[in-house]
Order: sequence, then structure tokens, then C-alpha cells
Amino acid sequence: MKPVGIIHSPYKQRREARSRTNRSETISRIEVFEEFEEGLRDIEGFSHIIIIYWFHKSYGYSLLVKTPWDDALHGLFTTRSPDRPCPLGLTVAELVAREKNILTVKGLDAIDGTPLLDIKPYVVPIDERSVVKAGWFEGKLGKGKR
Amino acid sequence: MKPVGIIHSPYKQRREARSRTNRSETISRIEVFEEFEEGLRDIEGFSHIIIIYWFHKSYGYSLLVKTPWDDALHGLFTTRSPDRPCPLGLTVAELVAREKNILTVKGLDAIDGTPLLDIKPYVVPIDERSVVKAGWFEGKLGKGKR
Repeated sequence: MKPVGIIHSPYKQRREARSRTNRSETISRIEVFEEFEEGLRDIEGFSHIIIIYWFHKSYGYSLLVKTPWDDALHGLFTTRSPDRPCPLGLTVAELVAREKNILTVKGLDAIDGTPLLDIKPYVVPIDERSVVKAGWFEGKLGKGKR
Repeated sequence: MKPVGIIHSPYKQRREARSRTNRSETISRIEVFEEFEEGLRDIEGFSHIIIIYWFHKSYGYSLLVKTPWDDALHGLFTTRSPDRPCPLGLTVAELVAREKNILTVKGLDAIDGTPLLDIKPYVVPIDERSVVKAGWFEGKLGKGKR
């Protein structure tokens, strides 16, 4: 698994990113390595993209975790904790601009230097579901899209 | 990167999965390895989960690809092709049932034996965006949620 780019972000430490996971307005720059630039053709036609990245500052994990939202212990796979067996991060971000191999995005809370693994188009009929149950998140983050 | 489980699916070959990527009703069983079962605590409270998996039948990639939806060449990162530099698959699936470490899901089009890398909760305020531009997908898949 070789990264396809690197994320440049104002966040230098984990705790800065962690406290801002809801409705972030943060601007980040995604540098896609030049050898992959051709794979970005026409990406500027999309207002939102899915970013998959490596939580490279994750060391170990617990199967039950506390989150910033309440005091209960939750199953790790019901949380977005960066400390996971496969430390993969996933964010749907707004694509603000593209300049060659550099994408400027809003709403990505990865820390500076995070390895980029993949970019996918965000497509409503593929990626959105009519959710009926949000588990322990219910009522914690509001109901609407951001 | 060690898998946390394995996906059992009616699809035995790539082409079976490929032709059904939109509005799939396929039922699959996700076997989370027993050592990770505790991390599933209360996951049955969620109607939808995000599945990240390894496209283990992917060999190589092109940066410009044709898709089932039109005859144009598209930048790889604007497509959901399984042939990518980091062959990571991503599906939001409906969680139909849980029995210990086995999750039954609807709408996952991975092939049988696919390594499971991660499960995350699907949470509307985190994962949905008010999309204004869907690039070359515009008008191809309908506009609504599935």
C-alpha cells in the first residue's frame, strides 16, 4: 500500500484535529504525487470528493473507546476513532479548487503530513442512504447534512 | 495492514459485482474475526455502516479509465473502478442483522472472500454533503439516495 499523495493541513497535532470533527471549515491542500496527476482529469467537475488516508500517528487501539460526545464506552467500529486495527481515515470534503496536482479542500481534519491513499468521487445515489437509525450518535450531532 | 474480517458474498467473480454497482439489493455476510468482536458492541443500533475493503482481485491500474456508464475516458480518481494504486473499496451498506461476529448487510457488492479492512458508523452530519456538482456522473444514476 503506497500513498498517492500527502495532505498539507494547519493541524500539526492529533488533538487539534480531534476537537473539530463536526462541521469543519478547515482548508487543507492535498498534494497528489505528479505521477498520478492524470488520474485527476476533470475532477474539478465534482463539488465533493471522498478522501481516504492513513492515520499515521495512530499507535495501537482498544476495542472499546470513549469519544468526545459522551462518557460511555462504545464499540470501536461504532466510532470514528483514528486508533483502529487498520488505521484508515475517511472524509467527504468539499473540493474548493484544483491547480494541476494540488487540490484545495474544505472540511478535511487530517493532520499535516498525513499520507493520502485514495480519492473517490462522492456521488449521491452511490454514497447516501436514507438512514433510520444512527445508534449512539442519535441526537448528538444534529440531523442535517453539513 | 491486516484484515479484520472477510466478506462472504454470492458474487464469485469480478464481473458479477461490477454490473450491479447501482442500487444493489445483494445480501452479504461479513465475518469479523472473533478477536475483534468486542469492537462491534451496539453496532446493531445503526441501520447503515461504512465498509472498507481490499480489492484483492485488482491487478494494476490505468490513470484514465472507461466505466460502464459512458464511452469517455475518465480520470481514475473520478471513478469507482476497483483498479487503483491503493485498491481500497468503500460501500455504505444497510445493516440487516447481527449475530455475534457476523453482520448481514444489504447493498455490498464485493466478491466472495474479499478482505475486510474497517467498519465505520454511517452518520448523516459527518458523511453527507449537499452536493452541487457531480461531475461526469451528472444525470447518469438518478439524483436520489438509495
